[in-house]
Amino acid sequence: MPIVAAVDQSERAELVVTRAADLADAYGHDLHIVHVGTLSVGNLATESTQDSEDVDEASRAAEEVAREIGQRVQPDRSFDAIGLVGNPAEELIAYSQECDAEYIVISGRKKSPVGKALFGSVTQSLLLSADRPVVTVMPQ
Amino acid sequence: MPIVAAVDQSERAELVVTRAADLADAYGHDLHIVHVGTLSVGNLATESTQDSEDVDEASRAAEEVAREIGQRVQPDRSFDAIGLVGNPAEELIAYSQECDAEYIVISGRKKSPVGKALFGSVTQSLLLSADRPVVTVMPQ
Repeated sequence: MPIVAAVDQSERAELVVTRAADLADAYGHDLHIVHVGTLSVGNLATESTQDSEDVDEASRAAEEVAREIGQRVQPDRSFDAIGLVGNPAEELIAYSQECDAEYIVISGRKKSPVGKALFGSVTQSLLLSADRPVVTVMPQ
Repeated sequence: MPIVAAVDQSERAELVVTRAADLADAYGHDLHIVHVGTLSVGNLATESTQDSEDVDEASRAAEEVAREIGQRVQPDRSFDAIGLVGNPAEELIAYSQECDAEYIVISGRKKSPVGKALFGSVTQSLLLSADRPVVTVMPQ
């Protein structure tokens, strides 16, 4: 029952990975660092035999993002880097079910350009649809 | 750094206490079960020397709610029962700061009368204001 750390490419990913590693240590579980990439609008608009290659490429790129963040934040520990493609909340929930995650760890909010705290839309979707506990970490 | 389980008087409190106890075991931390009570509108409207007595009474009643839920869900473990009075999200955040909680555990959502998943307003306020990780548990 791994701990799933859902990271984007913002500085908030560091807090998410740090907290997920802490939970993995407390429970003695594996750490899975997951990034959900997207296809560009051009790719999405194309219905061709290229589609699955595009998805494979986007998935490899997303996995590389996850790996780089993990190696930067937790250079001395082992983890699995996972790249997914699609709707972030849906993909995260499906992956967490597949690996029977104990927790999904995600960033709870971000600041708007004027400094107001904003609730993340991916977080809100997860909280409305997840079938397991979600840990939201809180950037100041 | 205790685990704070925030309970209301719904059946969702059982999931919150069970998960918070699991976290407390994993980390070797204390479990604090917290219920935030409210003063009745009548009490709130009265500005008199009775006010602090009313708050004391509401606080004792809230503590009793927390204790009963804890004893029902986790009859064989020790925990602290805490009763607070006021705005639930504000009181929970202030208490979690005071005791330097490792996590605040809360119910993520509930069902509307027609079965639609609804996001809890206390949860949303907490996620916008808390300065530490919030674990939301997910009733099916």
